[in-house]
Amino acid sequence: MNKAAILHKPGWNYVYPLDRNTLKIRLKAAKNDLQEVKVIFGSRYDGKAPYNVKKMELVASDGLYDYFETSITMDDNRFRYLFYLSDGSEGIWFTEKGFSNIKPGKSFGYGEYFQYPVINEGDIFSIPEWVQDAVFYQVFPERFNNGNTDNDPDRIRPWGAKPESDSFFGGDLEGIIKKLDYLENLGVNALYLNPIFSSTSNHKYNIDDFYKVDPSFGNKEILKKLVVEVHRRGIRVILDAVFNHSGFNFFAFKDVRENGASSKYSDWFFIDNYPVKTTPPVNYDTFANDVIDMPKLNTSNPEVQDYLLGAAEYWLNEVDIDGWRLDVADEVDHNFWRKFRERVKKIKPNAYIVGEIWHNSEKWLQGDQFDAIMNYPLEMSVLDFFAYKKIGPGEFSNRLVRNWMLYQDRVNYSMLNLLDSHDTRRLINFFSGEKELMKLAVLFQFTYPGAPMIYYGDEVGIEGEDDPDCRRCMVWDIEKQDKDLYKYYQKLISLRHELIPLRRGDYQPIVIDEIKNTYGFLRSYEDESIVVIINNSPLSQKYTLAGNLFGYKKEISNYL
Amino acid sequence: MNKAAILHKPGWNYVYPLDRNTLKIRLKAAKNDLQEVKVIFGSRYDGKAPYNVKKMELVASDGLYDYFETSITMDDNRFRYLFYLSDGSEGIWFTEKGFSNIKPGKSFGYGEYFQYPVINEGDIFSIPEWVQDAVFYQVFPERFNNGNTDNDPDRIRPWGAKPESDSFFGGDLEGIIKKLDYLENLGVNALYLNPIFSSTSNHKYNIDDFYKVDPSFGNKEILKKLVVEVHRRGIRVILDAVFNHSGFNFFAFKDVRENGASSKYSDWFFIDNYPVKTTPPVNYDTFANDVIDMPKLNTSNPEVQDYLLGAAEYWLNEVDIDGWRLDVADEVDHNFWRKFRERVKKIKPNAYIVGEIWHNSEKWLQGDQFDAIMNYPLEMSVLDFFAYKKIGPGEFSNRLVRNWMLYQDRVNYSMLNLLDSHDTRRLINFFSGEKELMKLAVLFQFTYPGAPMIYYGDEVGIEGEDDPDCRRCMVWDIEKQDKDLYKYYQKLISLRHELIPLRRGDYQPIVIDEIKNTYGFLRSYEDESIVVIINNSPLSQKYTLAGNLFGYKKEISNYL
Repeated sequence: MNKAAILHKPGWNYVYPLDRNTLKIRLKAAKNDLQEVKVIFGSRYDGKAPYNVKKMELVASDGLYDYFETSITMDDNRFRYLFYLSDGSEGIWFTEKGFSNIKPGKSFGYGEYFQYPVINEGDIFSIPEWVQDAVFYQVFPERFNNGNTDNDPDRIRPWGAKPESDSFFGGDLEGIIKKLDYLENLGVNALYLNPIFSSTSNHKYNIDDFYKVDPSFGNKEILKKLVVEVHRRGIRVILDAVFNHSGFNFFAFKDVRENGASSKYSDWFFIDNYPVKTTPPVNYDTFANDVIDMPKLNTSNPEVQDYLLGAAEYWLNEVDIDGWRLDVADEVDHNFWRKFRERVKKIKPNAYIVGEIWHNSEKWLQGDQFDAIMNYPLEMSVLDFFAYKKIGPGEFSNRLVRNWMLYQDRVNYSMLNLLDSHDTRRLINFFSGEKELMKLAVLFQFTYPGAPMIYYGDEVGIEGEDDPDCRRCMVWDIEKQDKDLYKYYQKLISLRHELIPLRRGDYQPIVIDEIKNTYGFLRSYEDESIVVIINNSPLSQKYTLAGNLFGYKKEISNYL
Repeated sequence: MNKAAILHKPGWNYVYPLDRNTLKIRLKAAKNDLQEVKVIFGSRYDGKAPYNVKKMELVASDGLYDYFETSITMDDNRFRYLFYLSDGSEGIWFTEKGFSNIKPGKSFGYGEYFQYPVINEGDIFSIPEWVQDAVFYQVFPERFNNGNTDNDPDRIRPWGAKPESDSFFGGDLEGIIKKLDYLENLGVNALYLNPIFSSTSNHKYNIDDFYKVDPSFGNKEILKKLVVEVHRRGIRVILDAVFNHSGFNFFAFKDVRENGASSKYSDWFFIDNYPVKTTPPVNYDTFANDVIDMPKLNTSNPEVQDYLLGAAEYWLNEVDIDGWRLDVADEVDHNFWRKFRERVKKIKPNAYIVGEIWHNSEKWLQGDQFDAIMNYPLEMSVLDFFAYKKIGPGEFSNRLVRNWMLYQDRVNYSMLNLLDSHDTRRLINFFSGEKELMKLAVLFQFTYPGAPMIYYGDEVGIEGEDDPDCRRCMVWDIEKQDKDLYKYYQKLISLRHELIPLRRGDYQPIVIDEIKNTYGFLRSYEDESIVVIINNSPLSQKYTLAGNLFGYKKEISNYL
């Protein structure tokens, strides 16, 4: 037995409460090492044997590991437990103190068992249910639709011209309101808007006033109207919280620039010395390096925290948005995010909190900070498999499993699953224009657990290389829209709304075929099941489902 | 290479900040598997090769694993890194995405590297420095000294009589004040008092009023005087926060008992149905099972949180205590503890927060909740080695390493290292009266990292089996005190105060001798080193230190 590879930890993604009397338990072992895994459990205040015994199921494998899971329920909510492991030749017990050939009995006392000391209500990770049913649509407001030419910035470029990093085109909130029919027809039921607060740039990631809608986008009343209108259509909307840094003309940074060390806001930023030098190399921390108009905020400073948390609360209270997407979320103080969660959820328990993190996000997804992240790790796996052909279905599956096993199930079902964004090239460009392959990736996106998100215009075939090219104007001329693609998206969206297994169902790979380059999986929810088999090869393939999966025989082809 | 056994996680005890530009990095591998471990690191915003390379040292091993560590520093505080691992025959790279035979280059992009996105001030785990210099003394106030007979409970028993679970002897706060000379002479510089708030029991773990000193112990003014007096002597004092449950006559529980479901405090507890039934089996959750006078508090309830946090703040503000010991800490809501930490540290950044947890405590010791725990896991290892002889020096060392590797170093140096308490039998009883063996354990306690704590009276030879016998009255009759033991403790305390390596020094085992049953270690701080070799056998042993450790030759025997 490869004991050194066996992992269980008394918390995090290895044991967590589903409700006040149920724990989900996970154990990881080297691939193909264990034949039998059982969890033996009881109340931590009841020393009496025998305890309950439950078999743990092998639920997934990747290249290195097998993962075993089960859930255990008791009347009491104070657990202790240990594992029995067998590789066929050796059987051992596994406790908090390690491995033992002797079963820890009552005489071993409380010292040996793993403990889940109690399930308190506040320690159960609560994520809004609606996220699992959401199909998101990301709008970059400056480029979506110009609904009011009166508020246009000076010298806007003609709609549809090639965007440069400093171009303006006049998109605004009224423009979004005017296109809600379009979004409703497409079928999406959630919007994510890139930043809309007072800012000098077209992307507005350098915010000068966190309490003010940018005048070229509208004002608070128009935002309020937008939210009312989308809610009326059953659509939710989340905004972009850019709390890692401010803009150049943010009042506090202005004060520091003007008053130097004597500014009462000097601790709001990270200034190396005075006076503040605003030509590169600058003498203050910024987002990335030397981004002059994005001075990094000191989010460990309680004053800064109060200011930003106030803004987060303000927009929830004033216009009733449905959550926040958090920009550069992994460079902001963890304690800030804990307070953020508490204050946001207090105002709106159903608010969705989703961080922009491109990497392992375990530290933020334990229930005390975010609900989920923008699932860039999933995007990268999808692109490597479908677009770059860097990996086959086996490694694709391994990566999905590895990413899945980092989090609690409910987090995985609430991920914001995107394939591109304002920070990447356009999806069709990842595929070098090969639309049929892109469709496979989108099919996967819409049939995998987690809320899919469409980057505005992908559904009509907008192209674009890296920023700023990926931020081209939305194409409204129906002659220039890719109708085939639009219908494909529309159908997938409607299937996802219609078929609950796609939203809530278990996920189980059933085809991993390296030769045929085919990957298939089963989504099951109660008595409904859906099979998706994706042929990632240029050849036509035929599959017969093992064991007559659906109890009847029917040939399906080109369903979509 | 046993790849499945290799573990690094981008956070927790596997990578954490020491200051705003330095990370401590740890990697775990199967024992004797890796010959070379290097970390390759750079700024996450600088894609330029070559990155910095640093060798990671094998710092410890247990029965299953080797642990490699180093610290890395950059001008920037936003890190990305990967590992190079070699077992002598195979060399591989290890990133967030797994293992690779090809070095991830710039082309792999940001997707591959482990990330430590930024070191924010608020994410650095800050623990009061004084704890490392502390020698604690635990006082069970009802049994330490009766300083004022006017406040005695009715029917107190004669001082020194055998305690029953409901006995009273009249100990009080004035009694402690009167014995401060004694404590100062012993040399301790920190006190932990068992609960002192309004309660019907002698142990006062069933608190009826969290804002009031129990009248039989004194009042707020006397507590204030106690704190002033101990501070005047350079002694710190922490109190016992019993927040998992209240007492039977706590105003809110009284209200629920009287008004049933209509009580506005019904959500402060866990009541199955009404009316509240207070004879066993009771119909409400209690500490453990059916402990009638300890109804469990709903610490996820914001009202309960406010009440209890208010009490924690009250005693810090009113009498300037130096921290809190947290009773049944692992059965209280995590978010409650996060708020507790924030509010306590805001009032007194130097306050010590130490939880009562007998098990793996990783979930509480990441910087957002406690500073440390009462180190019961250490106690159990010490007893198994020195008292019960269940394990030899090898397994003793393995257990120390395993426990150590759960936490950040600074936590280990701030642990509250006890060998007995009001919840166990007396230390001498663990040793069945074999004082010379007990002395070995105490020697280890005082020379190991973490703050040692003496349970009142152990130093004068008080005996006692499990509760209530372990709560006997302090022996003040010097004829009945074990003077030899007292001097032994006094000497160890004074050595610990005198020799900084014992408090701050690195810890490195240097002798693990199964045959001779001997365990020795080196404590090094800057240019001072101390060697401790503990002969846990009945035979006399002689050791020659390898490599002329101290640069001179001197025979030492019976130093203590």
